[in-house]
Amino acid sequence: MGYDRAITVFSPDGRLFQVEYAREAVRRGTTAVGIKATDGVAVLVDKRITSRLMEPESIEKIFQIDTHIGAATSGLVADARILVDRARVECQINRLIYDERIGVEALSKKICDFKQTYTQYGGVRPFGTALLIIGAEDNRVRLFETDPSGALLEYKATGIGAGRAAVMEVFEAKYREDMNMREAILLGLEALYRASEGKLDASTTEIGVIMLEDKKFRKLEESEVAEYIEMLKSQLGGEA
Amino acid sequence: MGYDRAITVFSPDGRLFQVEYAREAVRRGTTAVGIKATDGVAVLVDKRITSRLMEPESIEKIFQIDTHIGAATSGLVADARILVDRARVECQINRLIYDERIGVEALSKKICDFKQTYTQYGGVRPFGTALLIIGAEDNRVRLFETDPSGALLEYKATGIGAGRAAVMEVFEAKYREDMNMREAILLGLEALYRASEGKLDASTTEIGVIMLEDKKFRKLEESEVAEYIEMLKSQLGGEA
Amino acid sequence: MGYDRAITVFSPDGRLFQVEYAREAVRRGTTAVGIKATDGVAVLVDKRITSRLMEPESIEKIFQIDTHIGAATSGLVADARILVDRARVECQINRLIYDERIGVEALSKKICDFKQTYTQYGGVRPFGTALLIIGAEDNRVRLFETDPSGALLEYKATGIGAGRAAVMEVFEAKYREDMNMREAILLGLEALYRASEGKLDASTTEIGVIMLEDKKFRKLEESEVAEYIEMLKSQLGGEA
Amino acid sequence: MGYDRAITVFSPDGRLFQVEYAREAVRRGTTAVGIKATDGVAVLVDKRITSRLMEPESIEKIFQIDTHIGAATSGLVADARILVDRARVECQINRLIYDERIGVEALSKKICDFKQTYTQYGGVRPFGTALLIIGAEDNRVRLFETDPSGALLEYKATGIGAGRAAVMEVFEAKYREDMNMREAILLGLEALYRASEGKLDASTTEIGVIMLEDKKFRKLEESEVAEYIEMLKSQLGGEA
Amino acid sequence: MGYDRAITVFSPDGRLFQVEYAREAVRRGTTAVGIKATDGVAVLVDKRITSRLMEPESIEKIFQIDTHIGAATSGLVADARILVDRARVECQINRLIYDERIGVEALSKKICDFKQTYTQYGGVRPFGTALLIIGAEDNRVRLFETDPSGALLEYKATGIGAGRAAVMEVFEAKYREDMNMREAILLGLEALYRASEGKLDASTTEIGVIMLEDKKFRKLEESEVAEYIEMLKSQLGGEA
Amino acid sequence: MGYDRAITVFSPDGRLFQVEYAREAVRRGTTAVGIKATDGVAVLVDKRITSRLMEPESIEKIFQIDTHIGAATSGLVADARILVDRARVECQINRLIYDERIGVEALSKKICDFKQTYTQYGGVRPFGTALLIIGAEDNRVRLFETDPSGALLEYKATGIGAGRAAVMEVFEAKYREDMNMREAILLGLEALYRASEGKLDASTTEIGVIMLEDKKFRKLEESEVAEYIEMLKSQLGGEA
Amino acid sequence: MGYDRAITVFSPDGRLFQVEYAREAVRRGTTAVGIKATDGVAVLVDKRITSRLMEPESIEKIFQIDTHIGAATSGLVADARILVDRARVECQINRLIYDERIGVEALSKKICDFKQTYTQYGGVRPFGTALLIIGAEDNRVRLFETDPSGALLEYKATGIGAGRAAVMEVFEAKYREDMNMREAILLGLEALYRASEGKLDASTTEIGVIMLEDKKFRKLEESEVAEYIEMLKSQLGGEA
Repeated sequence: MGYDRAITVFSPDGRLFQVEYAREAVRRGTTAVGIKATDGVAVLVDKRITSRLMEPESIEKIFQIDTHIGAATSGLVADARILVDRARVECQINRLIYDERIGVEALSKKICDFKQTYTQYGGVRPFGTALLIIGAEDNRVRLFETDPSGALLEYKATGIGAGRAAVMEVFEAKYREDMNMREAILLGLEALYRASEGKLDASTTEIGVIMLEDKKFRKLEESEVAEYIEMLKSQLGGEA
Repeated sequence: MGYDRAITVFSPDGRLFQVEYAREAVRRGTTAVGIKATDGVAVLVDKRITSRLMEPESIEKIFQIDTHIGAATSGLVADARILVDRARVECQINRLIYDERIGVEALSKKICDFKQTYTQYGGVRPFGTALLIIGAEDNRVRLFETDPSGALLEYKATGIGAGRAAVMEVFEAKYREDMNMREAILLGLEALYRASEGKLDASTTEIGVIMLEDKKFRKLEESEVAEYIEMLKSQLGGEA
Repeated sequence: MGYDRAITVFSPDGRLFQVEYAREAVRRGTTAVGIKATDGVAVLVDKRITSRLMEPESIEKIFQIDTHIGAATSGLVADARILVDRARVECQINRLIYDERIGVEALSKKICDFKQTYTQYGGVRPFGTALLIIGAEDNRVRLFETDPSGALLEYKATGIGAGRAAVMEVFEAKYREDMNMREAILLGLEALYRASEGKLDASTTEIGVIMLEDKKFRKLEESEVAEYIEMLKSQLGGEA
Repeated sequence: MGYDRAITVFSPDGRLFQVEYAREAVRRGTTAVGIKATDGVAVLVDKRITSRLMEPESIEKIFQIDTHIGAATSGLVADARILVDRARVECQINRLIYDERIGVEALSKKICDFKQTYTQYGGVRPFGTALLIIGAEDNRVRLFETDPSGALLEYKATGIGAGRAAVMEVFEAKYREDMNMREAILLGLEALYRASEGKLDASTTEIGVIMLEDKKFRKLEESEVAEYIEMLKSQLGGEA
Repeated sequence: MGYDRAITVFSPDGRLFQVEYAREAVRRGTTAVGIKATDGVAVLVDKRITSRLMEPESIEKIFQIDTHIGAATSGLVADARILVDRARVECQINRLIYDERIGVEALSKKICDFKQTYTQYGGVRPFGTALLIIGAEDNRVRLFETDPSGALLEYKATGIGAGRAAVMEVFEAKYREDMNMREAILLGLEALYRASEGKLDASTTEIGVIMLEDKKFRKLEESEVAEYIEMLKSQLGGEA
Repeated sequence: MGYDRAITVFSPDGRLFQVEYAREAVRRGTTAVGIKATDGVAVLVDKRITSRLMEPESIEKIFQIDTHIGAATSGLVADARILVDRARVECQINRLIYDERIGVEALSKKICDFKQTYTQYGGVRPFGTALLIIGAEDNRVRLFETDPSGALLEYKATGIGAGRAAVMEVFEAKYREDMNMREAILLGLEALYRASEGKLDASTTEIGVIMLEDKKFRKLEESEVAEYIEMLKSQLGGEA
Repeated sequence: MGYDRAITVFSPDGRLFQVEYAREAVRRGTTAVGIKATDGVAVLVDKRITSRLMEPESIEKIFQIDTHIGAATSGLVADARILVDRARVECQINRLIYDERIGVEALSKKICDFKQTYTQYGGVRPFGTALLIIGAEDNRVRLFETDPSGALLEYKATGIGAGRAAVMEVFEAKYREDMNMREAILLGLEALYRASEGKLDASTTEIGVIMLEDKKFRKLEESEVAEYIEMLKSQLGGEA
């Protein structure tokens, strides 16, 4: 009865409907998954290409934030770009002021504090975007998920967007902490495969990885992605 | 039930109705198409002239943004002018600060970030305008489409405005990546021809092109346009 | 259902009702016409004098903007004064900064950009005024029409205000691009005559002209206007 | 249906109801008339004194603005005071900057521009006051009427306030441009007399005059007013 | 139908309901009267003491503003304090800048201009307070009444607050301009006596006077007030 | 019908409902009483302790403001803290600027002016807190009560909060101006005892006193409070 | 009927519904308890881990604020982060300005004043978070609870969040002021155990303690927590 029209209004049961509706915008977004391995961490996205006339690389869903940090987004694409730009600026500021790379958790908190602001003050709307932030620190990799409320959680493996439920089902069943990156990417692809009901294409699948060894974020080449998809398909064929 | 009255309000299913209504303003606009060729990129617009008393050149729908960038607009004309002016200023700023031409994607993102602002803060309305931005870079041409949400997509060939559906149908059926500029312009004209249900006139058709060779945006002379229309008509006559 | 209460709200079909209602304010205004000739350009207004107690010259509807630019207005008179003042200031600024006369189109765009601002930001209303702006450039004359949305169109001949429909009918039927100023003024007067259903009086008719020759805006003397009206009447008498 | 709640909202037929309602505030005000003569200009007001306990001179309705300018007001009295003060300040500013008296029309336009502001921006209401501004220039006298919209008209003779209709009827019937000041004041008094249905009293009638000869605004003494009323009464007695 | 919810909205008949409702706040206030005599001017207030536990002097309704100016208030007491403080500051500013006492009318106008501001701009409410301002000038005394609209009137004798109607009835019947201060105070007390339906007590009656002779505002001692009340009672006894 | 949703709106009968509702917040608060004696002044509060797990001293309801001023509060506790802090700052400012202790009435007015601000401007709510302010001046003690409207009254003895009616009944019946501090505290305790329907406990009763002798505010020790409660109980026992 | 839509609106019975609804957000949060012992003070939280894929340490509910201060939070997690950050900054400011550790109560009041601001001004919402703040001072430990209204209370033992009622029941029955830290932690665990209906796991239970001895906040290692849970289980087994 009107409690859901402004972010500055709590409903009688203590909810902020506008924030929950912004989460719906995420739930309408493309599926993205993040997964930790013993030797690295990866994000994978199944970009929806609805027309052959689109340039697939323009539907960017995985972004480098700093040399050691990357992110996958889901939800309103223009909002995502704003958040990614802000994250990049925060990283630069940290380098300028402290002359060192920002911590992955520190960056994730800054982004979440920024998002929280849009849930408490009038005249704005929350960001309709979730982010999976991956990064490497001294001796381990990190995988954070943010949502429109500004809440921050770390996962071993997780998913956002339209296919989240299907993704989490796969991960709950099959994720193991002793997986290496190759196994993790294959499991991540399998999750995307289940979420998309069996459609998966190297040209519309983005994968970003950070290996503990060199702590460098990089996006896989389409040929690498194709190889992994091949592996997955033969593996699933074996299972079937 | 009121979710569509303010851009700062999400609907329960995570939509921003005001942004969607602004897209309607675009859907009521003139039809514009963009198309990439192997040797260049072009935008074509079918300007609606409703009276012989109008000066056709005053209904400008294709604009030079920088020497190597051009744009076609559809939707609210006053909004389009604001965006075009801002784009031109961004190009000048880039030249002043970095002493070089702005990248086509960089410019397109700046325009989209500007648009996004008008979808998140209260007291304003989104821009009721879509843009097709074309440009040349070191070794390739670009074709971006922006919409009122601030989303940005790159296409091989695309259309905006009232005739978009008809245009896309033509492109999906006939577009080939190995077309040269001449073929591309003819296909773009055919798309406009279908969208306008067979009306097409050199005096009310604007064409802007950038060739990879010289990376210079230029608008075709009316005589050149007339020649292409003639070609199209004989070609269609042949098909018929 | 409420989409028409604020300029910052689009209706579901992508319209800005407040801007359309502001156009209604123009449609309730006095009739003004603009017309290009081979040797100049003119604006003509039929001022409504409802009482013999009014000083006719105080109902000014045609204004000099710069030596080479003039304008006729229709709609809310106080709004018109604000726009005319702003236009004059823009001309002065141009002279101060660039030491030259502002271009007619450049000025018209500045006025339209100013108007557009009042259609996108909350807490204000659009201007309820349309302007016909005439001016001379190096080798030609210009005639622009602006409306409350900030849209800008150039015409060969056009009309604003209550009598617009009647005016356009006359122009569509009789306007020729090879008319000289004398013929153009007579056609403009005829259009006003039709729009006012046959009433036309030298004391309540204002005419502003710019000749290509000297590029100077001047308002005709009442005696000159009377002469033209006489010519028109004998001409119409001949037609009848 | 709500179009009349905010000045920043046009009604579907292009009206600003709040401005029209502010005009109603004027229509509820005291009757004031202005009248030009060959040798000067005058304003006359019939102040309503509802109690013998009031000090009549405190119900001031005619104000000196500058040595050569005066004004009569009708409508909300506190609003009128604000406008009169602003007018006085504008006159002083003109003397300071240009070392000369402000023109009557220039001042009137400044007041009207000030009023217009209150009809276009949110969070304020229009002024509920009309002014009759009289003044002398080099070789003629001026009489301007402003209303809450910021519109400005010059009259030979006019009226504002509750009795406007009755006043205008008298003026339309009897006003002549060749009247001298004595005749004009008598006609103005007659107009007030008709508007007040035959009540007129020297102690509650204010008259302000400016003679072309000396260009000095002055308010008549009560004895002078009484003399004119006597003249009017004998004259009307003769007519009756 | 909603016209009375915001001061910035006129009703269709040109009224500002919020200002009228603020006048109701005054009509609910304590009764205060002001009265001019040949040799001075006085204000009298009947303070309502509802409990013997109150300190009567804390219910101050008559205030010294400057040495030569005093005021009585009725309506919201916190609003009255703000206005009284502002009036005192205005007096001090006048002494600082011009090195002389402020005129009574000049001060009253400043207070009224301040009040007017609260009737034209959004986001505030009008002051719910009326003031009777008395003061002495070179050769005469002044008595001004202000109301929440910012209107200013001078009276020979007047009243504000709950008992205004009863007070005015007494004054209309019995006030004479040739009264001396003693007679005026007795008539003021009689008015309060009628307004309070016959209750009047020295401890709850405040009287402030300014004599032309010394131009000094002073509040009468309770013993002086008691003496006047005695006089009034014996006088009324004589009448009864 | 909506007049009670904003503090900046008067109801048709001149009331400010939001201020009245804020008074309700006070009426739901703990009972506090203030009482003057011949040799000092005291405030007493019956703190509600609803759980044995609370630290009683954390439910502070009586505060030292300056060496010679104290206050008891009732209503929203967070609002009370803000007002107490502001009062302390005002005292410090006075000492810094004038090098002397602030007057009790001067401080009380400053607090009330601060509160009034929250009843006249939009976008805020009134303070939901009443204060009893006690203090000593040169030769007497003061006891002020403020309410959410910003009104200020001085009392000989008074109460605020849920038990106000019961308290005032006791005071009206038994208060005498010639009481000494011991008698006054006993009467204050009796009032609290009646208001709490016979419950009174030294650990939940706070008493703050200022003796004229030393003009120092101090809070009684729990043992002192217990002694007074004992005295009261034996006294009431004697009465019973 | 609308009183609950804005924090700046009191309901007719003096309540601020938005603040009460924010308390509901706390009531939906994780259960946290605080408990004082003779030799220290502790906070314990039962973090809800809903998936084995979450990194438990990322669901941080207990935070170090300064060396001698810690806090547990319940309610909206993004709001909690903002408040914790602000608390840390306040501690740093105190060290910078006064070169000493901030007092526990002083810090708690600063946080509560910050929260109060969000309950009195428009355009924001209250914080949907409660905090338990623990700290050590010279000779004692402190345990404060804040709620969304900005109210501040000190407890011997208390709880916030979904399990508060069950927690308080345990504490009311079994808490003793002479408990040492070991006993207090066991009782706190028991309270969490009852609130969670018998589920309690070392990996999802956080405990923060401050011992009077060293006044240092520290979080217990998971092994320590596991030991305490073992103790509790054997103890409960003994009871059962």
